[in-house]
Amino acid sequence: MKTEVKDILQAVKDGSMSVDDALLKLKTNPYEDIGFAKVDLHRKYMQGQAEVIYGAGKTSEQIIKILDTMLANGEKRILITRLSKESADAIMKIHDISYDEASRVAVLGGNASADGIGRIVVATGGTSDIPVAEEAAKTAEFFKNDVVRLYDVGVAGLHRLLSHKEEIMNASVIIAIAGMEGALASVIGGLADCPVIAVPTSVGYGASFNGLSALLSMLNSCASGVSVVNIDNGFGAGYLASMINHMEVKK
Amino acid sequence: MKTEVKDILQAVKDGSMSVDDALLKLKTNPYEDIGFAKVDLHRKYMQGQAEVIYGAGKTSEQIIKILDTMLANGEKRILITRLSKESADAIMKIHDISYDEASRVAVLGGNASADGIGRIVVATGGTSDIPVAEEAAKTAEFFKNDVVRLYDVGVAGLHRLLSHKEEIMNASVIIAIAGMEGALASVIGGLADCPVIAVPTSVGYGASFNGLSALLSMLNSCASGVSVVNIDNGFGAGYLASMINHMEVKK
Amino acid sequence: MKTEVKDILQAVKDGSMSVDDALLKLKTNPYEDIGFAKVDLHRKYMQGQAEVIYGAGKTSEQIIKILDTMLANGEKRILITRLSKESADAIMKIHDISYDEASRVAVLGGNASADGIGRIVVATGGTSDIPVAEEAAKTAEFFKNDVVRLYDVGVAGLHRLLSHKEEIMNASVIIAIAGMEGALASVIGGLADCPVIAVPTSVGYGASFNGLSALLSMLNSCASGVSVVNIDNGFGAGYLASMINHMEVKK
Amino acid sequence: MKTEVKDILQAVKDGSMSVDDALLKLKTNPYEDIGFAKVDLHRKYMQGQAEVIYGAGKTSEQIIKILDTMLANGEKRILITRLSKESADAIMKIHDISYDEASRVAVLGGNASADGIGRIVVATGGTSDIPVAEEAAKTAEFFKNDVVRLYDVGVAGLHRLLSHKEEIMNASVIIAIAGMEGALASVIGGLADCPVIAVPTSVGYGASFNGLSALLSMLNSCASGVSVVNIDNGFGAGYLASMINHMEVKK
Amino acid sequence: MKTEVKDILQAVKDGSMSVDDALLKLKTNPYEDIGFAKVDLHRKYMQGQAEVIYGAGKTSEQIIKILDTMLANGEKRILITRLSKESADAIMKIHDISYDEASRVAVLGGNASADGIGRIVVATGGTSDIPVAEEAAKTAEFFKNDVVRLYDVGVAGLHRLLSHKEEIMNASVIIAIAGMEGALASVIGGLADCPVIAVPTSVGYGASFNGLSALLSMLNSCASGVSVVNIDNGFGAGYLASMINHMEVKK
Amino acid sequence: MKTEVKDILQAVKDGSMSVDDALLKLKTNPYEDIGFAKVDLHRKYMQGQAEVIYGAGKTSEQIIKILDTMLANGEKRILITRLSKESADAIMKIHDISYDEASRVAVLGGNASADGIGRIVVATGGTSDIPVAEEAAKTAEFFKNDVVRLYDVGVAGLHRLLSHKEEIMNASVIIAIAGMEGALASVIGGLADCPVIAVPTSVGYGASFNGLSALLSMLNSCASGVSVVNIDNGFGAGYLASMINHMEVKK
Amino acid sequence: MKTEVKDILQAVKDGSMSVDDALLKLKTNPYEDIGFAKVDLHRKYMQGQAEVIYGAGKTSEQIIKILDTMLANGEKRILITRLSKESADAIMKIHDISYDEASRVAVLGGNASADGIGRIVVATGGTSDIPVAEEAAKTAEFFKNDVVRLYDVGVAGLHRLLSHKEEIMNASVIIAIAGMEGALASVIGGLADCPVIAVPTSVGYGASFNGLSALLSMLNSCASGVSVVNIDNGFGAGYLASMINHMEVKK
Amino acid sequence: MKTEVKDILQAVKDGSMSVDDALLKLKTNPYEDIGFAKVDLHRKYMQGQAEVIYGAGKTSEQIIKILDTMLANGEKRILITRLSKESADAIMKIHDISYDEASRVAVLGGNASADGIGRIVVATGGTSDIPVAEEAAKTAEFFKNDVVRLYDVGVAGLHRLLSHKEEIMNASVIIAIAGMEGALASVIGGLADCPVIAVPTSVGYGASFNGLSALLSMLNSCASGVSVVNIDNGFGAGYLASMINHMEVKK
Repeated sequence: MKTEVKDILQAVKDGSMSVDDALLKLKTNPYEDIGFAKVDLHRKYMQGQAEVIYGAGKTSEQIIKILDTMLANGEKRILITRLSKESADAIMKIHDISYDEASRVAVLGGNASADGIGRIVVATGGTSDIPVAEEAAKTAEFFKNDVVRLYDVGVAGLHRLLSHKEEIMNASVIIAIAGMEGALASVIGGLADCPVIAVPTSVGYGASFNGLSALLSMLNSCASGVSVVNIDNGFGAGYLASMINHMEVKK
Repeated sequence: MKTEVKDILQAVKDGSMSVDDALLKLKTNPYEDIGFAKVDLHRKYMQGQAEVIYGAGKTSEQIIKILDTMLANGEKRILITRLSKESADAIMKIHDISYDEASRVAVLGGNASADGIGRIVVATGGTSDIPVAEEAAKTAEFFKNDVVRLYDVGVAGLHRLLSHKEEIMNASVIIAIAGMEGALASVIGGLADCPVIAVPTSVGYGASFNGLSALLSMLNSCASGVSVVNIDNGFGAGYLASMINHMEVKK
Repeated sequence: MKTEVKDILQAVKDGSMSVDDALLKLKTNPYEDIGFAKVDLHRKYMQGQAEVIYGAGKTSEQIIKILDTMLANGEKRILITRLSKESADAIMKIHDISYDEASRVAVLGGNASADGIGRIVVATGGTSDIPVAEEAAKTAEFFKNDVVRLYDVGVAGLHRLLSHKEEIMNASVIIAIAGMEGALASVIGGLADCPVIAVPTSVGYGASFNGLSALLSMLNSCASGVSVVNIDNGFGAGYLASMINHMEVKK
Repeated sequence: MKTEVKDILQAVKDGSMSVDDALLKLKTNPYEDIGFAKVDLHRKYMQGQAEVIYGAGKTSEQIIKILDTMLANGEKRILITRLSKESADAIMKIHDISYDEASRVAVLGGNASADGIGRIVVATGGTSDIPVAEEAAKTAEFFKNDVVRLYDVGVAGLHRLLSHKEEIMNASVIIAIAGMEGALASVIGGLADCPVIAVPTSVGYGASFNGLSALLSMLNSCASGVSVVNIDNGFGAGYLASMINHMEVKK
Repeated sequence: MKTEVKDILQAVKDGSMSVDDALLKLKTNPYEDIGFAKVDLHRKYMQGQAEVIYGAGKTSEQIIKILDTMLANGEKRILITRLSKESADAIMKIHDISYDEASRVAVLGGNASADGIGRIVVATGGTSDIPVAEEAAKTAEFFKNDVVRLYDVGVAGLHRLLSHKEEIMNASVIIAIAGMEGALASVIGGLADCPVIAVPTSVGYGASFNGLSALLSMLNSCASGVSVVNIDNGFGAGYLASMINHMEVKK
Repeated sequence: MKTEVKDILQAVKDGSMSVDDALLKLKTNPYEDIGFAKVDLHRKYMQGQAEVIYGAGKTSEQIIKILDTMLANGEKRILITRLSKESADAIMKIHDISYDEASRVAVLGGNASADGIGRIVVATGGTSDIPVAEEAAKTAEFFKNDVVRLYDVGVAGLHRLLSHKEEIMNASVIIAIAGMEGALASVIGGLADCPVIAVPTSVGYGASFNGLSALLSMLNSCASGVSVVNIDNGFGAGYLASMINHMEVKK
Repeated sequence: MKTEVKDILQAVKDGSMSVDDALLKLKTNPYEDIGFAKVDLHRKYMQGQAEVIYGAGKTSEQIIKILDTMLANGEKRILITRLSKESADAIMKIHDISYDEASRVAVLGGNASADGIGRIVVATGGTSDIPVAEEAAKTAEFFKNDVVRLYDVGVAGLHRLLSHKEEIMNASVIIAIAGMEGALASVIGGLADCPVIAVPTSVGYGASFNGLSALLSMLNSCASGVSVVNIDNGFGAGYLASMINHMEVKK
Repeated sequence: MKTEVKDILQAVKDGSMSVDDALLKLKTNPYEDIGFAKVDLHRKYMQGQAEVIYGAGKTSEQIIKILDTMLANGEKRILITRLSKESADAIMKIHDISYDEASRVAVLGGNASADGIGRIVVATGGTSDIPVAEEAAKTAEFFKNDVVRLYDVGVAGLHRLLSHKEEIMNASVIIAIAGMEGALASVIGGLADCPVIAVPTSVGYGASFNGLSALLSMLNSCASGVSVVNIDNGFGAGYLASMINHMEVKK
């Protein structure tokens, strides 16, 4: 994803772009002020994620304004996370987006074909973890990855998980999503031979303490290759998985 | 274990013991005051555990005095838990006990032959959990149970656990002992078809928070038939497992 | 409960079922995919609880679809926990279920006659703990146990608890349910001579911290034979109590 | 205890002390600076507790210096809490004190005869709670109260507690001291008909979290008339119990 | 408050009541079962508080049924705490009660004249603590105490508190109620010379953590004579204060 | 403190230093690598605190090496915090430092005369808080402030605090240091009319939870003008107080 | 701000006010009782903040009554924080106030011209922190400070923060406001050379635990000159910043 | 790392190994029982990490026995983590190992040449974090990675971090290690364009709560591509970084 700055520099080196034009392209409009938020157009070059809008806490008017600014600056595909049904309905009247109500994810401009190292497996312990899983899966797909979904394969019914041993063994990266006891990450981490990104969910009751139990459990995983993101942070897991699944492109 | 009161009452009914003698036997010396602690000789009749001394926080002199009182009241076999090496050495000079330094458990009077429903499996996630496991196992053996030890079968190496699937499927009761992520209880709970007593241990570092992580994980287990005792409470698990494994005797 | 797999195998041994038929019966349809959830029909053989649906977080349409799949696979009696009034009303239009609004428990197919070792006592500290207690009691009854209810016998009014000493002394298993200080489990554990399953409830205010106080109190119980399940987990307690109360059947 | 200021004022009213003398007595030397600590001689008039030294974190030299200052100002009886064995030995070479190593309490000047409303009962759940209990008991005795000690009467062995029902029913104030599950306060609170001061102790292991479990349990007590002081705060409980047991004197 | 049992016994001693009648009066109907709750008529003799109904979590129908049972058993004055506006309105149609919406306290039968040792001061840190304070004050008044209200005298404006120094110095018992930093209990404890009952409130935001901050602060009070009840537990404080304020009656 | 960079720039403007010399002075040796730590000589210009060494976790050899590097770069006065007695003894053999064992603060090069706006008051609740207070006071003195020490003026003895009302009213900045209930900050915040920096200390036991209680209490202070630093962070408070007390110099 | 008492005293010294008039002005009506709250008119003289009303938990009627009392006592400019839209609308019908819905801050009487030492920078990590930031900014402006707003400059996009390096370097005081990881305070603290007041916000989800994560992060800041106020306490930060920014006036 | 199983299977496919030999190689000796621990030789094939010994809680005798078993099974290079100085000394007498006392890491058989995608940057906030960092760095080097160390580049001195911007921008994977406020992960996450593995450390005091503050801060990072491992888990971070840095090899 670090390609765009490199492209510009390469163009300068190749002579196909003047130094001044390059400078201009890099420096102008680092962000455009639209009143309530700085649309960080530069971040695309710095982090490769300018095309993402975090929808929580923004009105549909604000989101539409950000979308317009992005589109005006040449963005073609945009991912919106944590988008309420109401905001999605309002946006759909103006822009052509696909929207999934359970995960609250919207995509403008559709998905491009996958070009990662391998496949990303998204596994959940139960059916209640699916909204978080879909946020992760859709994020990974938006960033050009093939995704395999293994839902409701919690450790209390081990045969269901083990019947998918092949997908787990062949994965490039695995996102293990679970609430309650969070044991899924350790069991998958023990079976797999690739990075495992654990996502605790706030699903559960009583001593799950809104995801704290699963979070601690995952941080204490005895399996190697497991790391953890914030409770319910499907986007973060999907984005990181994509990063790892595109490692080969970097050289 | 509720047998002794029953025996007395039956003897009364049978005519082999007079009501007065029975009353005397039941009421005299409910506890004998030896200065620093009430030796609860009555508790044996009430709870069947008078023969256990909790050694933590007692001097070797105090423990010897309690032992003497118990022996003088006819106790034949006594279990001492959380007994320091120093106290054990001091006691050994006077009484014939077997002592295990790792689990700090001592037994006076040896073990009797097992008479439970089936076998009790004691499983641990790692080798560091063994001291707690031995406290549980030795307690269960003291109370007349066959014990099968499955140590170091943590979920990060699932094949080791699965290679013992038969012992797990055939157990009467299982004690699942683990620190860190505590996932062992859930995985075993999913495989087994008998009560599983989960014991979180304080083994670990960082976000294990001295057993809190394993404790929460076990309380949130999605597997049915799992219940939890206090962190590092091997005795409690062994005692409860024995109770369950002697259920048939009750009728 | 491990009887069904055994029955099949026994039938094979007896010659009343061919090996191929047995294989077929064991292997076909381990779970049937109905879109949003894998109905785990196999789990019945593995864990004896396929007949339970956890209703929380499922729409009435989803629950009805699962019910239909189960019934189509030969299930006769089904327990649904955490079922909202709305969903219950919707289901009642199609299926004949009995529903208790307080505990949110529904039963399809009625209860069968009890066949356990003894009686299960379900005791609560206050009247506010009754919904959790009823979840436990109805679960135990569904799994063929006689249940004795002792409600509102909290330790602050000891005479009420002691007036039921006989039921407590004669119980096969006791489920002690309490919020706030959670002392009920310890007091009953001291009186009883059978396994005690403690259920902390989220009833209370202030420093009860949604059940944390009762949970810690119960984990620290000084009485032997006490173990703990998750806050408000009446089902888990009822299921485990039934397991223990059917121990004799296992040999 | 509010008597001394009143005495001065009464003397003024009676004419047996001039206003100037009274003023002088009240205002001079509110505290004497001895370098490392302000010996608050005034506090005696304000709070009636100048005669107490909190020994923790003070060297024996510092304590002796404070003692000397107090004695020089006319103090006759002095209580020292949390006094290490080493400091006690050093002080004994100079002053005549009685010292109890378990509770780390020292008394200079002996105890005076009791003059309270009734008797203060100090009860503990186990033998490990005795050091805290003795701090409470010795404090209450120093402040002129009859104390009844009921040690090792924890709720898991209810018959031991109930065999002391009379002392509990007749107490003027009860101090209930327990670690682990802390249920003692609730059970006593339900039996008694007088103020109960609950003292959680740090005795225990695992999920007792150094007294947190007992603390929360006691705060959530369903029994009326129960209030709580800090973990291990035997002095605070003894002092407050004495205050309550001297209520009638106030009028 | 232990008077009623004593009255009966005294009547027996005086010859004005036969032993059998006394026995009958003491033993009959320890509680009357009205379906959803045991109305504990005996508790009046045991704890002197049968006349209190905890309204939280009960429907107006249930409360009315309890009221009727109590009245039928001769109760004249009844206190109802945590009573919702809706339930109060429903009850008012049938019974004559006075109701305070802020504190959710209702009284049936009016207050009797005060007969305590002295006056009970109820002080609050801010105006938001007043509902809890009124629960405490009205409870104390119901149990025959004079109450002095000092509201909004938090420590950040010390002159307001100090302008009431006289009331504080002359109090028999003080109830100090505060949320946020909870410093009020310590400052009053330092000024006063009587038992101080501290009530943390859940008032506040951010790091007040629903009363935890005030609770810890009060438990750590350096002032002597301070004890603590549960967060927002105005009733508990008022009841205990009344107990202490009636100490002299006990002899 | 921002003076040094300004001085250089002013010298450039004045013509007394060439731009190249200025550049050289600003850019050379931003830090000097001495193996185990980067001595940040640049930080002096950036933050004005290069002259401070945090001694915790460093060997005496490491500290001496850092000292030598600093002295070689022209540093005249150096403050060392959290310096163990052992390290101080070792350093004293080589360098001339003054060292205070209680606060573990050492000063090399002595103190310069005070030049702040007013005086900084350092107040503590008890005598056990003095080590933290001295770290704050000595830090403030090192940075050229007059310091007034008010130790052992906790809120439980309000008259001691009020007898220093004048110092409090006239302070430029106040550092309020207390463990246990932490109420000192609020009371002082209410009395004073200047910024109050609250320092919770880990002094205490039981529910003080190593300073957590005081920390929460101080964060919840109802008095305006109060802010909080980390538990036991005397240096941070002293440094910030000095910053505020030199505000007028900035223009 | 300590000017008003001084003015009175100076007037006395100058002879322009009689001692009696001064006494009268200082002592009369320290607070006026209006039923539900003591309007603390004296506090203005003591703390300079009588002109602030904390709107949370007060009805519009109560706020209007307080406003009227203040205005009747000569107050010209009044700040109301945490004022709901509903209450603001009700007040606007009677009084002329400016109201900002996002920060829930209202100002009566407008702002006066700034007279502080320098400018106060208010910076936020994200756009969701703006409501808290506006509470801080508007408070600072009300107390006569120039405010520079730097919003959405979180550390994950460092170039945005660094593009404002000049404002940060030139600030008199900085208020750093952030939720989630709270790193903003440390980074700004490292760049700046003035007091930094950190305000954690409850913005975030999952392991942000309603601001706890940001709070702990800010308390642990390694940068010097950073102190912390309560979660979401924009007013406290703005008030303290103003105090510091007016230090020079004090001499 | 999944190469070895594949190699065997490929050999089978190629005809260079018989199916029986392959089966034998895969199935024999899945672990060798040496009394106190199962040496899991199979795990190498399953997870590629058999060559690692976790030294904590093992005696030098036990470690030597495990080493001997591993060497006898053909292992050439072995990494030992958390190895005490005493054990290292004992092992060195028998085996040729390199040992680093600070990080407690030992390597037997030396390091092989790096063959990863790019370089792994290991950065720390302070010098106290170096032991954890060296555990991570040495682990990564053992698994054939080039490592760039950036120590003591905490965010409070941003210029030091920014002076290494190039290493950060060019890294393949970054391990960000910090205690206290943990802000390093977010700042690096914002600068970098590769996966960032955050390691909280237990370095700090007061409200760092043994790493909890850094842990929460890192979990809440607003930068994309950041995930977290357990407190002080240098090995886990190094192992995962190596996994990611060898992604391209997988195809």
